[in-house]
Amino acid sequence: MQQSSDSNRFRQALGAFTTGVTIVTTVDAAGNPVGVTANSFNSVSLAPPMVLWSLARTSTNIGAFLAARHFAVHILASDQQTLATRFSQKGTDRFAGLRVGSGIDGIALLDGCAARFECRTAFQYEGGDHVIFVGEVLNFEHCEHEPLVFKRGRFALAVGKTPASSGAATSLAAAADGAFGEDFLLYLLGRAYYQIYHRMKPEIVRRTLGDAEYLALTLLGVRDGRSVDELDALVAYTGTRITQRAAERLTELGYVEREEADPVRLLLTAAGRRAVVELLAVAEAASTDAEQALDPSESLVLRQLLAKIVEASNPGIPHPWQA
Amino acid sequence: MQQSSDSNRFRQALGAFTTGVTIVTTVDAAGNPVGVTANSFNSVSLAPPMVLWSLARTSTNIGAFLAARHFAVHILASDQQTLATRFSQKGTDRFAGLRVGSGIDGIALLDGCAARFECRTAFQYEGGDHVIFVGEVLNFEHCEHEPLVFKRGRFALAVGKTPASSGAATSLAAAADGAFGEDFLLYLLGRAYYQIYHRMKPEIVRRTLGDAEYLALTLLGVRDGRSVDELDALVAYTGTRITQRAAERLTELGYVEREEADPVRLLLTAAGRRAVVELLAVAEAASTDAEQALDPSESLVLRQLLAKIVEASNPGIPHPWQA
Repeated sequence: MQQSSDSNRFRQALGAFTTGVTIVTTVDAAGNPVGVTANSFNSVSLAPPMVLWSLARTSTNIGAFLAARHFAVHILASDQQTLATRFSQKGTDRFAGLRVGSGIDGIALLDGCAARFECRTAFQYEGGDHVIFVGEVLNFEHCEHEPLVFKRGRFALAVGKTPASSGAATSLAAAADGAFGEDFLLYLLGRAYYQIYHRMKPEIVRRTLGDAEYLALTLLGVRDGRSVDELDALVAYTGTRITQRAAERLTELGYVEREEADPVRLLLTAAGRRAVVELLAVAEAASTDAEQALDPSESLVLRQLLAKIVEASNPGIPHPWQA
Repeated sequence: MQQSSDSNRFRQALGAFTTGVTIVTTVDAAGNPVGVTANSFNSVSLAPPMVLWSLARTSTNIGAFLAARHFAVHILASDQQTLATRFSQKGTDRFAGLRVGSGIDGIALLDGCAARFECRTAFQYEGGDHVIFVGEVLNFEHCEHEPLVFKRGRFALAVGKTPASSGAATSLAAAADGAFGEDFLLYLLGRAYYQIYHRMKPEIVRRTLGDAEYLALTLLGVRDGRSVDELDALVAYTGTRITQRAAERLTELGYVEREEADPVRLLLTAAGRRAVVELLAVAEAASTDAEQALDPSESLVLRQLLAKIVEASNPGIPHPWQA
């Protein structure tokens, strides 16, 4: 019998079931708040309203929950990942520095969750090496915070699924046929990029700037004092080149001052800084409009995934934030 | 008392807890397979291995499960959404056309899941208007299929979360300061697009093509017989224009034939089709490399989110697949 290896395989198989993350709290006999991270939560009954969760018999907190007449389940929000970790660690004061409220029977209540249920302990059931706690929900709160998700042992975000998504296989099949499909990554990236940039274009043209001047200006906004060659190295992969002519044009417009050094360094003037702020505001507005169909977790996930793509496909271009 | 409104609010609050989706099956006294979709599943115990789920007392299948000595829990994969819907609908033959295997005691087994647990009914517990079934896991299987997720009443996919993600607020703050942040959407899109396109550039140059010729060629790959003006209308938003000169260049290279009509229509030759296949293969390879840090669900989600961005930011450009 490979007990531990079987147990690991069983854990892994269970990991295929994605869950939210909760912190369940109560108060012990001495009046101290008690809390544990649990993803074994689920709904049970609508009438009466009931939920359940389970806790290992070996948990140091099992006594407090077995004795408790009430407990509270907090469904954590996506920004409460550190709280989830804290309430799963041993030997720390889990409530230190937290604003702890007091619920029914004095049970500890935490804020900022996606939902919170105050429960009366209705049943305690045997469940192997765990105890199953069934609570009747007496009070609950709910807000629109994005929920935190746990998947295969890692924190995650859940993003709505389009039924039609057929994946990369279709794209490959189409490419073999000599036609790119609607899920062709380069097409989607290019189209999204150019469509948003297209919204900015009138603002760029209105300022009598070209692509090169626009790029140079926004890069100087991140950090100025760069030379033309340094700026060019940051954008050459786009096909647009930043040359002395772009620097001269920005100087003529009063956006940039030359610092005489070898090589000459470009500094933003107050007018240049203002122009950058205004251009970026247009870009933000265009991005926000483009993201109107996305919820906050989707916007976050999109940026995360794009950042991974940018990192993996980087042919060695320095990041604009590097000195 | 606003019973039904409270009940709806309770349901909504429970929806903040994201879950996987399962189908639980057994076999009835007559030997017919029985199955229901449930997201009330969760793990209970490691030693002995135990899981639980609950079913409404009003379910037409409650009798079969109360009588069953064994049942199987199938954690659904992301491509099993239609199966989840089917097993939650009344009055349909849920198993029609499915390949149904036979497990312990003849219980119905489905294929293609992310994980599957064959269980002995260990306990049946009261849980308000539901019965809680606790099963001891006797057999289980597990594969790497992406799991299906249920969030706030909709199907979803879970994507790993980067702790550092700070969201659009930072980006806005940075923009107000005159510097775009690392999560600036237009920057991420542009950088991802140009870096992947950069990988293709040598292949385009090697064929003595320019951006306009490349774009014209791939669009003709989707559907040929278009005029220069039609092609140009599809790409003008990118800043690159397709003119008669691009058409002439493609004709010289033997990739395109002119169909004399008014306006002249461009047809791909066999050599042109081959060139498109080869160019798209390079694009696919570059995309695959760029996606190396993404798991399959992340790739799918990225495409979905980009498609939403493309749709929301479309200034009225026809889709390349439209006639």
